Amino acid sequence: MHAPTFAIRPLPDVLVDALQSRFGAQFSTALAVREHHGRDESAFSVPPPAAVVFAQSTADVADAVKLAASHAVPIIPFGVGSSLEGHLLAVQGGISLDVARMNAILSINADDLTVTVQPGVTRKQLNEAIKHTGLFFPIDPGADASIGGMCATRASGTNAVRYGTMRENVLALEVVTARGDTIRTGTRAKKSSAGYDLTRLMVGSEGTLGVVTEVTLKIYPLPEAISAAICSFPSIEAAVRTTIQVIQLGVPIARVELIDANTVRMVNAYAKLGLREEPMLLMEFHGSPTGVKEQAELVQEIASDHGGQAFEWASTPEERTRLWTARHNAYFAAVQSRPGCKAISTDTCVPISRLADCLLDSVAEADASGIPYFLVGHVGDGNFHFGYLIDPDSAEEREKAEALNHALVTRALALDGTCSGEHGIGLHKMDFLVTEAGDGAVAMMRAIKQALDPLNILNPGKIFRL
Amino acid sequence: MHAPTFAIRPLPDVLVDALQSRFGAQFSTALAVREHHGRDESAFSVPPPAAVVFAQSTADVADAVKLAASHAVPIIPFGVGSSLEGHLLAVQGGISLDVARMNAILSINADDLTVTVQPGVTRKQLNEAIKHTGLFFPIDPGADASIGGMCATRASGTNAVRYGTMRENVLALEVVTARGDTIRTGTRAKKSSAGYDLTRLMVGSEGTLGVVTEVTLKIYPLPEAISAAICSFPSIEAAVRTTIQVIQLGVPIARVELIDANTVRMVNAYAKLGLREEPMLLMEFHGSPTGVKEQAELVQEIASDHGGQAFEWASTPEERTRLWTARHNAYFAAVQSRPGCKAISTDTCVPISRLADCLLDSVAEADASGIPYFLVGHVGDGNFHFGYLIDPDSAEEREKAEALNHALVTRALALDGTCSGEHGIGLHKMDFLVTEAGDGAVAMMRAIKQALDPLNILNPGKIFRL
Repeated sequence: MHAPTFAIRPLPDVLVDALQSRFGAQFSTALAVREHHGRDESAFSVPPPAAVVFAQSTADVADAVKLAASHAVPIIPFGVGSSLEGHLLAVQGGISLDVARMNAILSINADDLTVTVQPGVTRKQLNEAIKHTGLFFPIDPGADASIGGMCATRASGTNAVRYGTMRENVLALEVVTARGDTIRTGTRAKKSSAGYDLTRLMVGSEGTLGVVTEVTLKIYPLPEAISAAICSFPSIEAAVRTTIQVIQLGVPIARVELIDANTVRMVNAYAKLGLREEPMLLMEFHGSPTGVKEQAELVQEIASDHGGQAFEWASTPEERTRLWTARHNAYFAAVQSRPGCKAISTDTCVPISRLADCLLDSVAEADASGIPYFLVGHVGDGNFHFGYLIDPDSAEEREKAEALNHALVTRALALDGTCSGEHGIGLHKMDFLVTEAGDGAVAMMRAIKQALDPLNILNPGKIFRL
Repeated sequence: MHAPTFAIRPLPDVLVDALQSRFGAQFSTALAVREHHGRDESAFSVPPPAAVVFAQSTADVADAVKLAASHAVPIIPFGVGSSLEGHLLAVQGGISLDVARMNAILSINADDLTVTVQPGVTRKQLNEAIKHTGLFFPIDPGADASIGGMCATRASGTNAVRYGTMRENVLALEVVTARGDTIRTGTRAKKSSAGYDLTRLMVGSEGTLGVVTEVTLKIYPLPEAISAAICSFPSIEAAVRTTIQVIQLGVPIARVELIDANTVRMVNAYAKLGLREEPMLLMEFHGSPTGVKEQAELVQEIASDHGGQAFEWASTPEERTRLWTARHNAYFAAVQSRPGCKAISTDTCVPISRLADCLLDSVAEADASGIPYFLVGHVGDGNFHFGYLIDPDSAEEREKAEALNHALVTRALALDGTCSGEHGIGLHKMDFLVTEAGDGAVAMMRAIKQALDPLNILNPGKIFRL
């Protein structure tokens, strides 16, 4: 990784005046506000944006983009600030466009299993809002991220093994283009062959091709039966081999998450869960009561073959919440285990048959490095995260962590995997993207960017260098 | 629909010589060969391409594209010629690039549930090649289409309700760009957030952004149990209302297809099936034996509530094949029911709750028109097809059929649906695309096209006007 370079474009006074006049109290240049919008969960330190606009409507977004365009000034959409890869950082200066106030649920079409929301709605808010319908939205990155941000990074999470990622679950978007035009990328039809797939082009484009102002999502009937279990294993390898077999047999498991012994210790300390401090799989089964029972029995058998023991089952929502607390608190528990640290997260994803090859050597390398780390994984998808917990002021630790990440990504790419399963490229993985996709594919991305944003104002300096 | 306009670009002699010299016997300007490559299943009549290249490798494709680019001559990928919307027609002249000989199965990764093939492999050939692994590829457009062609139109078929479309099932592509460069759009990882989703951009781009030369697909374990059934209904409405309820309850049905009474008659005449000549649903259930039983019982109950009767079940492969013959032969049975006719196919897809609204009025209009037609539908997805069987020489019939199509599309768009669920835009639906997507979204598609293919050589004149 290179440290980000800054070539800050100035915010002309005339633009400040125009923004002030158009947005009044929705506009701020106060340092505290700017600093809040100049940080995310990445380990980078970059000067804050020059100003912040708090959009409350698509018209606000369109006008902010038009004003930015009129002076070729960067504009960076901002949701809740939970990016892990520096997506929100104003490496070329400009305006942070905070869409958190655009948090209306616009329509719930329970009969069609779709919902349309503004981008500032968070995933938990969405699930709260649709609870009465008996439906739910499965995608759950660790943070309570905004739906707009989840579109931007093509997020996924623990349920992706069964329900897919944002790639599969965004049906249509409203987007403000780099010229400030408002377009729709699709309809509520479940499938379509009508022209280029602008929806999927926008999903994962990290705010560089347009600003998402409405999102239509698929939602799902809450399963008739849900059962969750944790199971401890004698080694990470045993847990991983169990997962591989479950997936290869086509078990429609809803969640299968790995937590290593080290991370269980951190979570126990953070949330007093009293879990066995051994490598662990957290699993969840969705279906009819008999379907869930069948799946659970089969998985239990596979786990036993690999030395899995101490199965603990949870069928009530409260018991399930307790088990899942371990997984959902892993990141924060880990970061708190070393006060003042920053986590450098890895995000490789490999074909399931390569998972053990990719993971086990990387564990050995991390252990040998002496850098504290956590390890969790959406292992059913072949995706896992190391979080190397570094002292952000120690160049040596940062270098060691990046060397570990580099070795891991190199290994994953050699195994036909990707450098990023769900966090995006941002600032952090630009070099990896070139290695993974090749110059020709990155050139194609760049050509698309230049065609859709010729002034390079939409979150510039991310994904690739222009 | 406007009749296609032609502005044929000439094939310079020097290019003919260069193609002849590079491709030898793989190059032809014979009229019969050109005419074969100047037709598809659409009702358009367009002069054939000026020449045909039979590619046998990615290098052949790259060289053919480079030669075409050097003279700004169109080049149109060709698989098996089963397009319904005029995708293959040389409306600006140029070269047809036949990839049927690129029909190797490159790798079967059964452990990862992926397969990589060349674009000329057909869906039946693929399933034959992977049969021994216990895996299958579910996407089944009516024709035995090529995988490359299925990528081009974002095809789906009867299993899409459970397994998704080409959008969800193409993991990665190798693509030759308009400059003749070869790029890869992804890896074999199940999910990725690594940059713009070039895979999904290419899928559905109808050969206008690149030529697909390798396709990595998801494949699935053959279900432990499969059960198929047909059920007759007193009306189309009863069949449709049954479908809506099945989907809304979240039954993971693998196939649910509507055939109207008229089409059952045609199929009976064509394949001597002796089916009850009433509106019919064909259904299939995949899962464990108990899972399949549960699904089947629930659906049977719902169908009975709507007057469904005469359930006929099939559990052996042979019995299932007999039932599905009705569906898979519908198109050919219909076309043969009126010798010399051409089918003008509709392809609307609406949210499931709007299906009855969209379908029933369109049936009434079709009945009133006097034009013979067939009606089949992937109704679980809200997608259905009328095929208006016109005398291609009768301007009056063509006009009537297009008026029916126009009314249907207008209705579908008003119901938040799409003009094309799976056939693509091609020549036929360009105006509908503008109505559906809006000028701004089409302008974005056009900007992408111009950025990636500045000479407009890749299948020009399709999807939108430049």
